[in-house]
Amino acid sequence: MAVSATIEKVVITPVAFHDMPLLNSVGVHEPFALRSILEVTTKEGTYGLGESYGDSAHIERLQRVADRLGGVSIYNTNEIYRICSDGLESNATSGGDGMAGMVTTASVADKVFSPFEVACLDIQGKIAGMPVSELLGGRVRNSVQYSAYLFYKWAGHPGEQDDEYGAALDPAGIVRQARKIIDEYGFRAIKLKGGVFEPRQEVEAIRALHTTFPGIPLRLDPNAAWSVETSKWVARELEGIVEYLEDPAGDIEGMAAVAAEASMPLATNMAVVAFAHLPSSIRQDAVQVILSDHHFWGGLRKSQTLAAICATWGMGLSMHSNSHLGISLAAMTHLASATTNLDFACDTHWPWKRRDEDVVIEGALKWSNGGVIVPTAPGLGIELDREKLARLHKQYLECGLRKRDDTTYMKRFQPDFSAQIPRW
Amino acid sequence: MAVSATIEKVVITPVAFHDMPLLNSVGVHEPFALRSILEVTTKEGTYGLGESYGDSAHIERLQRVADRLGGVSIYNTNEIYRICSDGLESNATSGGDGMAGMVTTASVADKVFSPFEVACLDIQGKIAGMPVSELLGGRVRNSVQYSAYLFYKWAGHPGEQDDEYGAALDPAGIVRQARKIIDEYGFRAIKLKGGVFEPRQEVEAIRALHTTFPGIPLRLDPNAAWSVETSKWVARELEGIVEYLEDPAGDIEGMAAVAAEASMPLATNMAVVAFAHLPSSIRQDAVQVILSDHHFWGGLRKSQTLAAICATWGMGLSMHSNSHLGISLAAMTHLASATTNLDFACDTHWPWKRRDEDVVIEGALKWSNGGVIVPTAPGLGIELDREKLARLHKQYLECGLRKRDDTTYMKRFQPDFSAQIPRW
Repeated sequence: MAVSATIEKVVITPVAFHDMPLLNSVGVHEPFALRSILEVTTKEGTYGLGESYGDSAHIERLQRVADRLGGVSIYNTNEIYRICSDGLESNATSGGDGMAGMVTTASVADKVFSPFEVACLDIQGKIAGMPVSELLGGRVRNSVQYSAYLFYKWAGHPGEQDDEYGAALDPAGIVRQARKIIDEYGFRAIKLKGGVFEPRQEVEAIRALHTTFPGIPLRLDPNAAWSVETSKWVARELEGIVEYLEDPAGDIEGMAAVAAEASMPLATNMAVVAFAHLPSSIRQDAVQVILSDHHFWGGLRKSQTLAAICATWGMGLSMHSNSHLGISLAAMTHLASATTNLDFACDTHWPWKRRDEDVVIEGALKWSNGGVIVPTAPGLGIELDREKLARLHKQYLECGLRKRDDTTYMKRFQPDFSAQIPRW
Repeated sequence: MAVSATIEKVVITPVAFHDMPLLNSVGVHEPFALRSILEVTTKEGTYGLGESYGDSAHIERLQRVADRLGGVSIYNTNEIYRICSDGLESNATSGGDGMAGMVTTASVADKVFSPFEVACLDIQGKIAGMPVSELLGGRVRNSVQYSAYLFYKWAGHPGEQDDEYGAALDPAGIVRQARKIIDEYGFRAIKLKGGVFEPRQEVEAIRALHTTFPGIPLRLDPNAAWSVETSKWVARELEGIVEYLEDPAGDIEGMAAVAAEASMPLATNMAVVAFAHLPSSIRQDAVQVILSDHHFWGGLRKSQTLAAICATWGMGLSMHSNSHLGISLAAMTHLASATTNLDFACDTHWPWKRRDEDVVIEGALKWSNGGVIVPTAPGLGIELDREKLARLHKQYLECGLRKRDDTTYMKRFQPDFSAQIPRW
């Protein structure tokens, strides 16, 4: 008979880590980013790790599931998903995901399920003595490329010292930032978070990057800050310069209207963020590149399903990121390493967190030439650093933040700021 | 470091087992059905089983892959798939699948890959001490329902004694056959293979079944023997009587034309048999139910991807079958048991093979109330019966058949028979 591998205990620890004042279309990053850290332990004492959003509404949903997982097999993801779906409040489609104002229709069940699934795969890998990448079908690359994720930003949080990156509020500042970040990590693709200044300045920033880093693929992501007409104008201006334009318009219909005239592919992590959005988007050819994200697409195996859908319909595939820690980076890297049709460097916020803040033991995730070398130890190949976890949990308790709210924080310093989208 | 689980040896054994003279739109089943049995063994001595088509062209492709698998990890299905795709002859899209005249465009790589993937999952399950259903996400049902698969048939093969089912050449014969097969297995759904007699007789057979077995879901599958106009006529005649109509027309465009007027869903295992067919079919709403089949959709995990696509686009899901042995039945049952959105009883040719002919040790696959109880032993939960395998291999060597050819066999007895489709 089957060896038992049932869940005995789930510990969810909310954590906060320092973040920099990164600007986007709905405001500015607060001094701390929040995450939830899941530790799933089997009766036999094997533990697996998951990482997800840290908003309190989301953590409550995670906890409600955690309380019901005792005795469930770590292989039985159908049952775990059922528990995640069961009893979700009817208004659960908004909030709780750390993406306020951006994503409102994604499947909440998929978001709740994701970190449990990752933790279960971590355990499955440990039991089999295999890295998660191998459970997902095997590495097709030994290192996963990420992009240099540039942000317009203030020099430091108001009232605090300048951070190590300093200000980036114009094209020259963005180029300076790109140099620093590429010097350190060796990235071979660049993404600029836009939607902050008027489109002409952001187009100029991209042109400046194009001139400074010839041949490096570029992307611009205004987070739906532009009207369809403005998006079309930007698309004309950046023809032949960006590999894709990310979420210029805010919904499937808007993206379809832009796509009909744009010469480059359009990518999204806002218009299409759940399986239910795919039929409409595909029918209208609204987006040509899906920015997958296992945190909201329901875990690693569902992200593989998404990849297969992209391959079937001829859509490109890249990867979205929120501010995250090492468990997420490990999961993203394993997934990307086993995904044949990953067409672009993945996004990551990794450079924006402090080097000494994480929840995993240092050394398992190695950067080299713009990529992370895929861990080959069993499971995710990382181990929890309980001392660091305790420190980031203490930081969570003390920082006072309980949900991500870039807009309110921005308004403290610019009372007339409007997060209305589209702005231009 | 990871435990090694690399392939040391693959043995492919062609087998033949007795089949009955079952009629279909392209001819009649020959006295033997052919299958290939795969035994994959790791360096550590664990073996996994796969079963596939037995046509010699297909077996040659399987053997070519088998010869290159030494040292490959049984988890690395990406690499195994790459080997399957590599060097496939350019004309490999037809033949080799035992479905001559029916399927010509399915992905040959998927067909070659499938039994290797099943064998690798069998081994993965044995290593984890888990049934394959658990590796696929866990059982959502403990027993998988199959349908009573009725055929028009001759009393026996020409020149031989009548078989135990005898003739079924009219509605009364079909009802008699249904009674016998349901009495033995307890099936709670009925499928009639049509395309054999003129549509009016087949409609009458369905009506007779409807009268005799009220409340039991019915399906009719003419294997594309009808024109679009005839298909529409049948759809009108069987409104409210069949749960779906299977492959009335022969391609996506024909199916779309019928679907536009039919009141019941249309199902297919002919018009949509590979991922590449899905975009066109979905765009035209050509079929409403996909009859999945892990043997040609690229194995169990790819069949799960297909299931997710069906769920995403609101298509129904059922399962197709060819003549098969116990390894396939086990794989089909594990897959179906872990598939949440399986909407209909699966098809199986099981009742048409002799009870004493198989390649697995008796007792692992138990029928009850029209379903197979999902094995809970590790892996597929079945073991190879080497004595029986040797017997069926000897039968293969002696029977002389090397590919399925229902049409040529039919013409030996009805020289004027035409397999032209559509016929009516």
